[in-house]
Amino acid sequence: MPRRTNTRERLITTAAGLFWRQGYAQTGVNEIMQQAHTTSGSFYHFFPTKEDLLLAVVDHVGEILEAEVFGPAGEITGDPFERVLAVVEASRKHLVTNDFTLGSPLGSLAAELSESHPAVRRRIKELFGVWVDQIRGYFDEAEDLLPAGVDRDALARFVLSTVEGAILQARVNRDLGAFDATTAELRRHFSFLQQQRTGSASGETHPPPAARQEPQTKDWRAW
Amino acid sequence: MPRRTNTRERLITTAAGLFWRQGYAQTGVNEIMQQAHTTSGSFYHFFPTKEDLLLAVVDHVGEILEAEVFGPAGEITGDPFERVLAVVEASRKHLVTNDFTLGSPLGSLAAELSESHPAVRRRIKELFGVWVDQIRGYFDEAEDLLPAGVDRDALARFVLSTVEGAILQARVNRDLGAFDATTAELRRHFSFLQQQRTGSASGETHPPPAARQEPQTKDWRAW
Repeated sequence: MPRRTNTRERLITTAAGLFWRQGYAQTGVNEIMQQAHTTSGSFYHFFPTKEDLLLAVVDHVGEILEAEVFGPAGEITGDPFERVLAVVEASRKHLVTNDFTLGSPLGSLAAELSESHPAVRRRIKELFGVWVDQIRGYFDEAEDLLPAGVDRDALARFVLSTVEGAILQARVNRDLGAFDATTAELRRHFSFLQQQRTGSASGETHPPPAARQEPQTKDWRAW
Repeated sequence: MPRRTNTRERLITTAAGLFWRQGYAQTGVNEIMQQAHTTSGSFYHFFPTKEDLLLAVVDHVGEILEAEVFGPAGEITGDPFERVLAVVEASRKHLVTNDFTLGSPLGSLAAELSESHPAVRRRIKELFGVWVDQIRGYFDEAEDLLPAGVDRDALARFVLSTVEGAILQARVNRDLGAFDATTAELRRHFSFLQQQRTGSASGETHPPPAARQEPQTKDWRAW
């Protein structure tokens, strides 16, 4: 059962799960109402159209990101790079918790709906912006660990690319191989950046082992 | 007009464009038949079900990759890293040619259909494998430019992650900022790997400018 049980929230979390799993177009309003144990009167009271519910689902992702991804990651003290990697780790947990049946909460909707639902595309663009701003903030904190002249916004966009692509591969492959390979290479990239800053001879200093570190985030419930 | 005009090919290329643009579920068989100027008799002769056509579209992506991405990239002589970057550049051209209205030919279908169409998911998994094998082949050729112990298969999966995520961001943002930022950072990563191999003092040697290089691939027609 969803944790929050008022009808509007229940419709949103139910629809989110269905949209992520089977796509927006293939999910009917009746299916959502049945799984959310609600009536059409309730549904249309809160959401005059299915697209209104879709936009609420996208906003819901924004709330999840803030409360359950960036919140816990921000509490990690010390190395700002570990905060970035904690955000990546949150996506890994999301994949495992849902047995690879759900893709990226934003990416999967964007892939299906960018053309047919411009309002959704614009809202996802905004949330990608929020995501990038948060990650760039961690890199800003790491300014004295990064080589001079690194474009921290560009670096954050690079991280978003790696995460979205890693989620996609995990979902298609039904395993974590590509996801963990991506994370390990991202970790190596952070290590390279720091080596370049410190000016250590890169031929002598090897990056840390590529093996994934244990989760750094606090526990967070399944989405 | 599509270059290849026999009915089966025309149905496939027409359906591909519609599926990539507006999603599989939202594309009707009638719409495909109309745009392909064909009859239902022809359609069902070649494709007993819409899913048969979908699988043919996925196979078509495999043919495009071979003929129009890896073929030209493989002809680039010299630096194997440039062959990898030529593959990335092919996706950039695809985005620009289609004014950001089409996403990743495999990624967008995977995001929508992985749960509802397991046969499609498995075929996309195979094609991701082909993609990774090709890129890993380029890294194999660059073996003496890479640090010892680099997992070249994992590195290729990392590249696929960056490309899929970069395409997704470009499509959502309707611009190339995140795509080019991702490519520049990937180029920097390749530079770091080579610096580590040669043992040059990384603090002294800066990576090449992050600005995107001009296309290295041969011209290739719009998909």
